[in-house]
Amino acid sequence: MDAKQAIKDNRPAAQNKGQLSIIALPNIPLVVAGDGLPSIICNGLTECRLTLQDGDIIVLAQKIVSKSEGRYAALDSVTPSQEAINLAKDVEKDPRLVELILSESRDIIRKRRGVLIVEHNLGIVMANAGIDTSNVEQLESGSNDEIRRQVLLLPKDPDASCEALRGALRKITGAKIAVIINDSVGRAWRNGTVGMAIGTAGIEALLDLNGRPDLFERPLQATQVGIADELAAAASIVMGQADEGRPIVHIRGYKPQKGEGTAQDLIRNQEQDLFR
Amino acid sequence: MDAKQAIKDNRPAAQNKGQLSIIALPNIPLVVAGDGLPSIICNGLTECRLTLQDGDIIVLAQKIVSKSEGRYAALDSVTPSQEAINLAKDVEKDPRLVELILSESRDIIRKRRGVLIVEHNLGIVMANAGIDTSNVEQLESGSNDEIRRQVLLLPKDPDASCEALRGALRKITGAKIAVIINDSVGRAWRNGTVGMAIGTAGIEALLDLNGRPDLFERPLQATQVGIADELAAAASIVMGQADEGRPIVHIRGYKPQKGEGTAQDLIRNQEQDLFR
Repeated sequence: MDAKQAIKDNRPAAQNKGQLSIIALPNIPLVVAGDGLPSIICNGLTECRLTLQDGDIIVLAQKIVSKSEGRYAALDSVTPSQEAINLAKDVEKDPRLVELILSESRDIIRKRRGVLIVEHNLGIVMANAGIDTSNVEQLESGSNDEIRRQVLLLPKDPDASCEALRGALRKITGAKIAVIINDSVGRAWRNGTVGMAIGTAGIEALLDLNGRPDLFERPLQATQVGIADELAAAASIVMGQADEGRPIVHIRGYKPQKGEGTAQDLIRNQEQDLFR
Repeated sequence: MDAKQAIKDNRPAAQNKGQLSIIALPNIPLVVAGDGLPSIICNGLTECRLTLQDGDIIVLAQKIVSKSEGRYAALDSVTPSQEAINLAKDVEKDPRLVELILSESRDIIRKRRGVLIVEHNLGIVMANAGIDTSNVEQLESGSNDEIRRQVLLLPKDPDASCEALRGALRKITGAKIAVIINDSVGRAWRNGTVGMAIGTAGIEALLDLNGRPDLFERPLQATQVGIADELAAAASIVMGQADEGRPIVHIRGYKPQKGEGTAQDLIRNQEQDLFR
C-alpha cells in the first residue's frame, strides 16, 4: 500500500507488524433472504473509501448471514415432539423453541431453568443452539395484526458461507482476503458474551506456535492460539449488540500465516474436553 | 481530537462510533522487578508519536506486569507438600510446580495427565493457576553455569495494578484512560488460547445492555457483554505469543460507558456456573 493509497483509504498503512485497524462499515441496510452480501459489503467499503487489499479480513455477524440465507423459523409452524414438551417444562421455555433447539443440536450438555446448553450440529457448544430472537423482524399476519414470533437459526454451513463470500469478493475486487462469521456466545466460568468465530475462510483459524522460539530462544510448548476467535471478539467490539446495526466489520493489519483452516479447527474433540 | 492532533498522532481520529485503532508499542525493553511501567508506557507511546487521550485504553500483558512486580518463583526454592507430591504424580508434573499452583489456587476444578485446571485465588478458572515458564528469564547460578528454572506468577492483585497504573498515567499525561491486564487462557470446549482480562481499571468490564432496544425497538433480554475480555483478545492479536516482545498495546476508539467495574465482574458466581 503506497502513500497515495493510504490517503485514499483515509487511514494509514498497517504494514508494520503490531497494528490493527478495525472499522464497522456504515449504513448497512436491513437484509432479507436472497440479498447479495458481496454487493452490500462492497457498498459499505465504498462508503468508508476503503479498497479491499490482500490480507484484509471481513467479519460478518451471524445474524446478517443467517438473514441473507433465509434461516428464519416461525414458531407457529413448529410442532413440538414429546421430548421437546418434557424438556421445555423442565427448563421453562417455549416447547416450540425447544423443538427447534433440539433439531439444531447433537447433544444436550447442561440444562437448568431458563438455560439449555447444547452441542450444536456444527459441533459448537453454546446456549439455545445459537437461536436468537433479538434483532429479528416479526411477521405481521392476518387481518388482526397478530404478530407471529420469528426466530433465526445459525447459517447451515458457516465455513462454506465464508468460503463463498471470500470467492465472490475475490472475483469483484481481486483481493485475497479472509472472511469470518462471528456470534456472541456465553462461556463457562465467566459472565458476559464474547464474539466467537463460527465460520472462517482464508485464515488459519487455530494458530499453532509449537516450536516457535520464545524471547529467550527456547521453543514454546503447546501453544495454540484461537486467533479467529480473537479477531471475532475484536470485531464484536465495534459491531455492538443492540440497535447499532453494524453487522459488517473490516480488519486491516493482521498478517495471516501461510496455512489455512476452518472454524471447525477451533472445536475441541469430545475426548479431549473436560467440561461436557 | 482536531486535525492537527490527528496528524501528530499519525493516525486518524476515531471519534465516530465503530472504529478502533490497535497498536502494539514498539521497542519495549525486557522488564525487571522494580522497573516503572508508567515511564516505559510513555516512552513507547512517544516512539509511536501517540499522545494519550481521554477514553484511550492501555492493555498490558500479564507477564510484563508480573515481572515489574517481581512475581518470580525459583522452583529450587520450593518444597512440595505431600498433597503436591501426590497430585504431581497423578498429573505427571513437577511437584514443585504443583506446589506453587496449589498455593496460588482456591480449588482444583479438573485434573488429567499434563492438565491441572484450577480456580485461582483471584477467582479465575484457568490452567496451572496462570503460572507460565515461557518468556521468563532463567537464573544462572553458581560457577557451573547451572540454569535454575524460574516461573512467573500472576500479579498479586491485577485490578489494583491497573488502578495504580491508571492513576500514574493520569498524573503524567492528564488523560482519563482505562487499563487492562490480559493473559492468554484456555477455554472449555474450544482449542487455542485467547486473550482475557485478568485486571481492569477505568472501564465497565462487564457491559450490561439489559433493557436497551434492539433494531426493532424491543428491549434486549439478558444481554451482558464481556467487553474487557473482547478488548483483551483484540490486544492479544497484535501482542503475539512467541518472540515478538510487544507486551503493551494502545487502543483508541472504544467509547466506554459511564459506569466502572473491575475484572472481578467477569467471574461467574460458583452457584451460577454449570461447568465446575
